Order: sequence, then C-alpha cells, then structure tokens
Amino acid sequence: MDPDSREPFCPYFHHAAELIGRRWTGAIIRAMLAGVSRFSDLAETVPGLSDRMLSERLKELEAEGVVVRRVTPDTPVRIEYCLTDKGRDLAPAIDAISDWATRHVVIDGAPAAPAHAPAAG
Amino acid sequence: MDPDSREPFCPYFHHAAELIGRRWTGAIIRAMLAGVSRFSDLAETVPGLSDRMLSERLKELEAEGVVVRRVTPDTPVRIEYCLTDKGRDLAPAIDAISDWATRHVVIDGAPAAPAHAPAAG
Repeated sequence: MDPDSREPFCPYFHHAAELIGRRWTGAIIRAMLAGVSRFSDLAETVPGLSDRMLSERLKELEAEGVVVRRVTPDTPVRIEYCLTDKGRDLAPAIDAISDWATRHVVIDGAPAAPAHAPAAG
Repeated sequence: MDPDSREPFCPYFHHAAELIGRRWTGAIIRAMLAGVSRFSDLAETVPGLSDRMLSERLKELEAEGVVVRRVTPDTPVRIEYCLTDKGRDLAPAIDAISDWATRHVVIDGAPAAPAHAPAAG
C-alpha cells in the first residue's frame, strides 16, 4: 500500500486487524504458517491456549475462509486444519508484525533473543 | 523476517499481535499514522469508538511506548497524541494488514472499493 494513500479509517483494515489480533488468533495463524496442522499440536504449540479457545478460534477462522478443516478417513480419523490461499496470504502481515516485535518488544526486561534479531546489514 | 526461520511460537510476536489487534487499537494507530493527533479527532475518525475506550487504548499505547502525549500550554491547552519512533515503525505491519484486507476482506457482500485496491500492473 502506498503510505500516502493511507486514509485515516478503513473498515476493511479494521476488520482484518481485529481478526488477526483477536486473543490467540495471531499465534494460531503463525503456528499454521510454520506447518503445524493438528489440533493437539496447535494446542501444544501455543502456551496457555486451552482446547476450548483453540476450537472457538479455528471455527472463526473457518467462517472467515482463512482455515479449512480436512478430515482423512484413516483409523483413527485424522483431522487437520490448513490455511487456505487467503490464510497463507497473511504471511507478509504476520512477518511484518514479527519484525516489529523483534525490534521493539521487551518481555520481563528481555528483548527478543539474538536468534530472533534480523541479520546485521 | 526469513519465512524459513519462522518458529511455530514466539512470545514477542504474540505480544505484538495482541497489542495491535486489541479492539480499536489497530484503527487508532492507523489514524495516527495518517496524521490524526487530537483526542476529539481520533474519536471522530474511528466509528463506534467511545471516548472511554479511546482513553483506555491511548493509555495502553503510552505504557507500551508506542504513543506519547504532548501538552502545549496554549489557551486552551492543546493536547496531542503522537506516535513515537517505535509507534511509527508499525507502519509496515499496518500496511501489510491493509494490503491483505484490500485483497480478501468482504463486508456485507462488498469487497474493498476499487479506490482501496492496489494499483494494477
């Protein structure tokens, strides 16, 4: 987006920002971009995320067309959650937020570990 | 960020995503990036945002070092909210979310207006 054309308010942006930023949603999308697809793996990946919350968030993301639920009729049945094209297209936004976090977020006095820092120019 | 180095969970990303995505916060930062700085102008710019909520969000953003409150001893006193360097540095993330919204968000059956669409070619 051309920054000069950034209008003060855009309902489409507002919708997207509140979708991505809803409690846990950003972390879930990031884990899925990194290849995590099973419910139990997603629940394990994001510390503090309860099964109930994960289930709720995945339903919201399905309703938004960001995530699709795939059932493989194996024994036992294998259920996976995958990003749609629309979901994968969130990668630049997730990465831009990650970049900012790496540069600026401090947790309990600790900045992002050097491993998270952008490579020196 | 190098997408290949995207780890499934990062607490710094998580913190940033939930900060930007907190109800109204993305819209407030976007309006400030577009040059809106007075409390009453911010409240007017974002539809549905109450004075109480705006005040709460600005306090959170001040505590995060994203926003600074400037008081000019005029008559009447002029109070402005400005983005810090850390806050202005959110522009790429805000723009990446805007880009995604332009391509994918549909509200009440309507995609983003052509004026919001990225330039062709």
